[in-house]
Amino acid sequence: MRIEVVTIGDELLLGYTIDTNAAHLARELAGLGVEIVRRTTCGDSGDSIAAAVGDALDRADGVITTGGLGPTSDDLTKPSIAALFGREMVLDATHLAWMRERWATRWPDKPMPASNAQQAMLPVGARKLTNNHGSAPGIFLEDARGRWVAMLPGVPREMRGMLADTLLPIVRERLGTVTRVVRSRTLRTTGVAESLVADRVGTQLDGVGEVGLAYLPNADGVDLRLTVRGLSPEVADARLAEAASRLRSVMGDAIYGEQQADLAEVVLEACRARGLVIGVGESCTGGLLGARLTAVPGSSDVVRGGVIAYDDDVKRTLLGVPAALLAEHGAVSEPVVRAMASGVRARLRVGAALAITGIAGPGGGSEAKPVGTVWIALDLNGAVESRQLRLWGDREEVRRRSAQAALELLRRALASNPAA
Amino acid sequence: MRIEVVTIGDELLLGYTIDTNAAHLARELAGLGVEIVRRTTCGDSGDSIAAAVGDALDRADGVITTGGLGPTSDDLTKPSIAALFGREMVLDATHLAWMRERWATRWPDKPMPASNAQQAMLPVGARKLTNNHGSAPGIFLEDARGRWVAMLPGVPREMRGMLADTLLPIVRERLGTVTRVVRSRTLRTTGVAESLVADRVGTQLDGVGEVGLAYLPNADGVDLRLTVRGLSPEVADARLAEAASRLRSVMGDAIYGEQQADLAEVVLEACRARGLVIGVGESCTGGLLGARLTAVPGSSDVVRGGVIAYDDDVKRTLLGVPAALLAEHGAVSEPVVRAMASGVRARLRVGAALAITGIAGPGGGSEAKPVGTVWIALDLNGAVESRQLRLWGDREEVRRRSAQAALELLRRALASNPAA
Repeated sequence: MRIEVVTIGDELLLGYTIDTNAAHLARELAGLGVEIVRRTTCGDSGDSIAAAVGDALDRADGVITTGGLGPTSDDLTKPSIAALFGREMVLDATHLAWMRERWATRWPDKPMPASNAQQAMLPVGARKLTNNHGSAPGIFLEDARGRWVAMLPGVPREMRGMLADTLLPIVRERLGTVTRVVRSRTLRTTGVAESLVADRVGTQLDGVGEVGLAYLPNADGVDLRLTVRGLSPEVADARLAEAASRLRSVMGDAIYGEQQADLAEVVLEACRARGLVIGVGESCTGGLLGARLTAVPGSSDVVRGGVIAYDDDVKRTLLGVPAALLAEHGAVSEPVVRAMASGVRARLRVGAALAITGIAGPGGGSEAKPVGTVWIALDLNGAVESRQLRLWGDREEVRRRSAQAALELLRRALASNPAA
Repeated sequence: MRIEVVTIGDELLLGYTIDTNAAHLARELAGLGVEIVRRTTCGDSGDSIAAAVGDALDRADGVITTGGLGPTSDDLTKPSIAALFGREMVLDATHLAWMRERWATRWPDKPMPASNAQQAMLPVGARKLTNNHGSAPGIFLEDARGRWVAMLPGVPREMRGMLADTLLPIVRERLGTVTRVVRSRTLRTTGVAESLVADRVGTQLDGVGEVGLAYLPNADGVDLRLTVRGLSPEVADARLAEAASRLRSVMGDAIYGEQQADLAEVVLEACRARGLVIGVGESCTGGLLGARLTAVPGSSDVVRGGVIAYDDDVKRTLLGVPAALLAEHGAVSEPVVRAMASGVRARLRVGAALAITGIAGPGGGSEAKPVGTVWIALDLNGAVESRQLRLWGDREEVRRRSAQAALELLRRALASNPAA
């Protein structure tokens, strides 16, 4: 099955928005063994949409579009493609009723704007694709020769939901038995430099067989991506499993998870298993560590809370850090970060207390403590350990890497101390 | 001048890499008044490249490609496009000598791999585009009818350098005097639904003249992007200014900033001007509001800190919320959020205290308080105001929208009370 993707929107063509939908579509379809053979981006005009989709349909069996399904006047995807298929637009009364009901629960006092009704206009013969994350339905249109166009919304969350819930099952059904796939497996590491990872894998491991290996550095660490192509699903999975186990034997406990694994989730799980409750004390990260932990659904049984001790006054009053310690060593110092961690443990009555204090920049650095100097500490049931980090990158990266390093400190402490 | 862009690479088509080059090219060319009319992404095979570039050349005056110029065997851009133009590939001895010299300074002990020499093979009649950030030269090819293809590298840093150093000057020269540009201006709103914004602009405003208007909903609110095309730079700016002022007259104080404005930055600025210090108390957002405020460089003179009162125990002990209030109304209630805000103001000794408590989901909702029910409050020097939100979206969106709404509560309070 040859599929092309057309992403629609002036904001994409003008470069105001980076096209992340296209990459997501490609990865999901690759999982079914379907390769996207070409991708096109066109503007919001009806002519551009019809031309781009028409050209794609001449080459492919199916075309997936994203964007241009909203209620505003620049949303022309549906009528342009309907015209391409020679179909009229008709009102879907069921959808309109559903939209009115949905509107009334949210804004009982305001009437629904007339522009919203446009979302209930569908091409004749269209199959509706349910949108569980928004009000614009997706559309599936097929011509007499079996060529099809699936129109998905441009908002990433809506697009992703609709793809998983409705379009992938349709594609899977049309594929029948899948014989050749492209598959990947990603192992995530943190706290080890890319060149060291490459060195360990290169010198201690004689490659990873006929499996492609890519090093992908990012703000969370270095991901190792293994890829195989053109194999049956079973053989592909077996090759990946073998390569992953060889990588694990070399990298050991530097690997904290696979695929999209989130270190916060890994840490929460480890604490949950031990009945440990977490508290945080944050200076330069200003709430980022707490935000990462509580971003995980169900974190409330493990996370008690924290103190954003941005100003030294808060470090003293809410965390009990002695004023003398702050005066003598400065806020970014080992004694202070340890006192912060212990203050969190005592004041929040938790077993695992993490603290961070540092210089995120761009200002505030000195020769002795340059931007990127960060201290992290863990007070685990009274046992305190601390580490100094020297991070590079801008303010955002320093903060993100600091939170990641604090989580890793707790993960490793628990891993090396099964009784904690 | 009609230009199309073709970005080349299996990793783009497979979704492993997000295509940021395309957006950069679009923004830079728009600055010269050149619009990219279509963008195509194709894989690394010679056939795909020739087909995509050939199709683009049939429609456009010029085509810019990125990717496929490196030394590895999957880099087929040059020979494929040379074949399309009916040109042979010849060795450029000057370039080869330059490469050998460059290699010798960096790795004096190792001979240059033979694969590198491929980069010195150029199509007959090609104009070389200097690469100041890497070893692969760019190529500019023109046919007898004046249609051209410019091949740039795929590595973003090399592509950006070559574009600025060599390709933009060529395009500018061919354009003659720049008389026509594409320009945009974005006004950011929050707290108003997209369809309501569209309704207000549509009914109360007779359009925005000959200026294009796009509604761009995102997790922060709805951005209104005005775009003009095909005007002189002066006329374009004047039209945009006029349209922006008409939009402002209709949307009033719902507009919190322009272009990439960050609401946290706007609020920090307003507080700084009044000498106000901010503190936060966060339940369901778990630190996100603090993280947003402290993400802004220089926020430390305005932000004192906060309490992540995720567990009710923390609401009682660190914020002084009465246990009876929690028992009677529940943690997600108006009395509790007001007590949290006042607790923050008292315990952190700040003038502006923001509090958030809500149900971010996916669990924890009930019929009376469904997921997305959030209370926010502001205690501004003792004057407390609170608001209930009914948000949709997943956990991440509910949390992000909650933090944004809290910031907006403070922004509006300060705007309507210049003396605070």
